[in-house]
Amino acid sequence: MSFVYKSDPVRGRLWAEIFAREAPQLPFHIWPDIGDPAEVRFLAAWEPPANILEVFPNLEVLFSSGAGVDQFDFSALPPELPLVRMVEPGIINGMVEYVSWAVLALHRDMPLYQRQQRRAQWQAAPVRPAAQCRVGVLGLGSLGQAALAQLRGFGFNCAGWSRSRHAIDGVQCFAGSTELPAFLARTDILVCLLPLTAETRGLLNATLFAQLPRGAGLVHVGRGPQLVEADLLAALDQGQLGDAILDVTDPEPLPPEHPFWQHPHIWLTPHIASATQPESAARVVLDNLRRHRNGEALLGLVDRARGY
Amino acid sequence: MSFVYKSDPVRGRLWAEIFAREAPQLPFHIWPDIGDPAEVRFLAAWEPPANILEVFPNLEVLFSSGAGVDQFDFSALPPELPLVRMVEPGIINGMVEYVSWAVLALHRDMPLYQRQQRRAQWQAAPVRPAAQCRVGVLGLGSLGQAALAQLRGFGFNCAGWSRSRHAIDGVQCFAGSTELPAFLARTDILVCLLPLTAETRGLLNATLFAQLPRGAGLVHVGRGPQLVEADLLAALDQGQLGDAILDVTDPEPLPPEHPFWQHPHIWLTPHIASATQPESAARVVLDNLRRHRNGEALLGLVDRARGY
Repeated sequence: MSFVYKSDPVRGRLWAEIFAREAPQLPFHIWPDIGDPAEVRFLAAWEPPANILEVFPNLEVLFSSGAGVDQFDFSALPPELPLVRMVEPGIINGMVEYVSWAVLALHRDMPLYQRQQRRAQWQAAPVRPAAQCRVGVLGLGSLGQAALAQLRGFGFNCAGWSRSRHAIDGVQCFAGSTELPAFLARTDILVCLLPLTAETRGLLNATLFAQLPRGAGLVHVGRGPQLVEADLLAALDQGQLGDAILDVTDPEPLPPEHPFWQHPHIWLTPHIASATQPESAARVVLDNLRRHRNGEALLGLVDRARGY
Repeated sequence: MSFVYKSDPVRGRLWAEIFAREAPQLPFHIWPDIGDPAEVRFLAAWEPPANILEVFPNLEVLFSSGAGVDQFDFSALPPELPLVRMVEPGIINGMVEYVSWAVLALHRDMPLYQRQQRRAQWQAAPVRPAAQCRVGVLGLGSLGQAALAQLRGFGFNCAGWSRSRHAIDGVQCFAGSTELPAFLARTDILVCLLPLTAETRGLLNATLFAQLPRGAGLVHVGRGPQLVEADLLAALDQGQLGDAILDVTDPEPLPPEHPFWQHPHIWLTPHIASATQPESAARVVLDNLRRHRNGEALLGLVDRARGY
């Protein structure tokens, strides 16, 4: 019985140290070294090999090494193979930091002040109390809920939207497509933390932007293909959106000639909002291996019909 | 008995509404309308008139209409006149927002990403957990303590320095000039929230910067004259400091030809970190008027020897 890691090898060596300490009985290999393929029961990968069961005929669990599973081609994976998302505190803390930073930046007009700085203009904008700023988070999974908890601490007027019904203290929760318009109509700063699925692809488009209050801000930390780029540019240029802070694009890296780079109302970061912390990620996987051994439910098990 | 407000008249009209509602028996005037000068017992001002006791012979209390009192020339004010700083929740919340935004920006390399964006470069920097980022706040008054409480919530390794000894849960507290070097040596992101006094003028200079770890970040939300501008430019250019986020300068507004405007490692905002919210400010002053009437201690009373 062995474990194979197929992702960034620098992080892989940190995983190897933790596994050697915490699970010394389980051989740990870093791709392309896989040891005896018949022994491999567990694979942690960002991009699994094609023909996965030919490479690892006795594979029992496939772990994603990062936050999403949209990089997996479900149709190329055996239907009975359990897939596990990465849900670990390192990812959550990083996302809470980024979303807090981005929402505060929009709330306090930082993109405006940067434009003013370039032209040496000293001009204060009016400050609204956080309680008068309505933040809305699309996606109420572990990341969305953690971000909302922090935003509430600043006193923002918080709401969340999700496909299914949630109840979160101090957060007005909206569910399903029928409640999306009401959610958008009350949202001054929209944060997208949705997983990439067939339903969310292209969701951030002109129709959605038109339902926000004029001048709303956008923080996009979901996945690039959720955003219709031409619609964002049009909404910014027409003033329907004020400013956008984007951490994800399509493709990544964004090509140098792309109009987002030099747009005065777009702040771009290179998909850094949140990254797996090797230390805590390895511990979460080890905990799931223990659960698997004991026949308990795996944390972060993917529902393939739902797509995440 | 009457009250005179001498500051931004737009805010003054909001104060007038609140006073009319909460203290209808007390006539409220907005400068230059002062009513009968002999009746004026209370003045809220950013810049009091010269010869204050000639203008208001029966003045009992002078309130600052903003956070600082360094704009007052103590030597021009009667020594027995009580001076009161503005300590109100609107100022505190605004400052907590700004400091959180700025510390997160430096922690997550946002100035670097903005420089990269201008040259269309997609390049992620390593992310450190907040617990490995040592934030140090200079000044442990109500603003410093509120900022530290929020920063602790993000998991930063927090310390504070003040002239006098403080004890704050979860914050390593340093006191006095003898402990300043140890405080600086453990500080990756330095936040200045000190009042402007003879001791703090020019404090942020080459000697201080040299005691920080190489590449440290600076958030300056104190007062412009605390910073030696040439020393900041040298420290940034030598890499002793990584990036600086400045909300205060000397003078303000900063002249258009000043080198700070176009410096690639300086983010400038036009003294907007925190502003009095007229609603809560007026309530705090009304509460102090009640205390004065009842012979209780005034909140925010200035110790002139200390300077704040």
